[in-house]
Amino acid sequence: MSRLLDNVCSELQRLPGIGRRTAMRLAMHILKMDAEVVDSMAESIARFRHDIRHCVSCNNLSDDALCPICSDTRRDRSTICVVEQVGDLLSIENTGQYHGQYHVLGGVISPMQGIGPSDLKIDLLCDKLLTGEVKEVIIAISTSVEGETTLFYLINRLKAFPDVKVTTIARGIGFGDELEYVDELTITHALLNRREL
Amino acid sequence: MSRLLDNVCSELQRLPGIGRRTAMRLAMHILKMDAEVVDSMAESIARFRHDIRHCVSCNNLSDDALCPICSDTRRDRSTICVVEQVGDLLSIENTGQYHGQYHVLGGVISPMQGIGPSDLKIDLLCDKLLTGEVKEVIIAISTSVEGETTLFYLINRLKAFPDVKVTTIARGIGFGDELEYVDELTITHALLNRREL
Repeated sequence: MSRLLDNVCSELQRLPGIGRRTAMRLAMHILKMDAEVVDSMAESIARFRHDIRHCVSCNNLSDDALCPICSDTRRDRSTICVVEQVGDLLSIENTGQYHGQYHVLGGVISPMQGIGPSDLKIDLLCDKLLTGEVKEVIIAISTSVEGETTLFYLINRLKAFPDVKVTTIARGIGFGDELEYVDELTITHALLNRREL
Repeated sequence: MSRLLDNVCSELQRLPGIGRRTAMRLAMHILKMDAEVVDSMAESIARFRHDIRHCVSCNNLSDDALCPICSDTRRDRSTICVVEQVGDLLSIENTGQYHGQYHVLGGVISPMQGIGPSDLKIDLLCDKLLTGEVKEVIIAISTSVEGETTLFYLINRLKAFPDVKVTTIARGIGFGDELEYVDELTITHALLNRREL
């Protein structure tokens, strides 16, 4: 087998979800792409890894010290939405319905994986609350065991700021979900939190 | 959204089977990798695209003019196994049971995709047969409609070399396949080509 091919396959296999066969398929596709396009792809990967920064205010991925959201003066600074990771932030941004700030924890508390509260950007969040500018913190983290642990830890930490309202996003039946296939816990929550019409 | 992140996601989406979400997941993984590892991955992609060649004898991917198989003097030069693409060649090599040469067509005849016989390396194969060194050509191409078309075209072209035996790999029930779930055509072939024990 060609050393160059073997090499690119081994390197691609470092990525999650890419095994030997997929790596080979990607390599064959790379072969058919224009050389300049491949160069620009390779360069964007290396540049991303080298030049990306974390926003000093919210821990979002950023090209500069402050991310585009934190430096946008039109956004509401009285609300902070706390998320686990950048992907969650982007999902909320995609709705176009939220105009406040964010705070990216960078994970959830997971004793199994050795991730404690000090590994997350919780102090940075509390520092921001000291200014008194923030009126509400919306916690939007996943409902896994780790997520719930993190939620309770955060609620406790945020008790130090009694003027700040702490909320979590609503749990319930998703649009398009068939009730028949929704898990019991979600249905229970949806029933308990029913709304009057 | 960070421009660097947006960029790497768009670039990764050029690869087959990688959509927005997967690209984002790969980017997050790249972020956690050592910078030198990412550099070496990016470089291997660009180098593969720029430096890879096609073996002048068999059309296999190669670092040099002749691929490692064609330049290996211990391999049997009297047998050529014809395959569609490099991945097929590697699958056969992985068995460790074949010691002859290969010939990579580079695809199959597909009028729908505008691929005619002249787009495949068939002339190159016929040129090799002119020397009289080759005694057998094993055709190992897929049983799709395009594959069968290519098979019949090849059989016709190879009639010009009456001294060369032309064979195809056996079709039948795969090891581990449950007869209950095997398609009728395969079972029919397996019955017609039954072997005496």
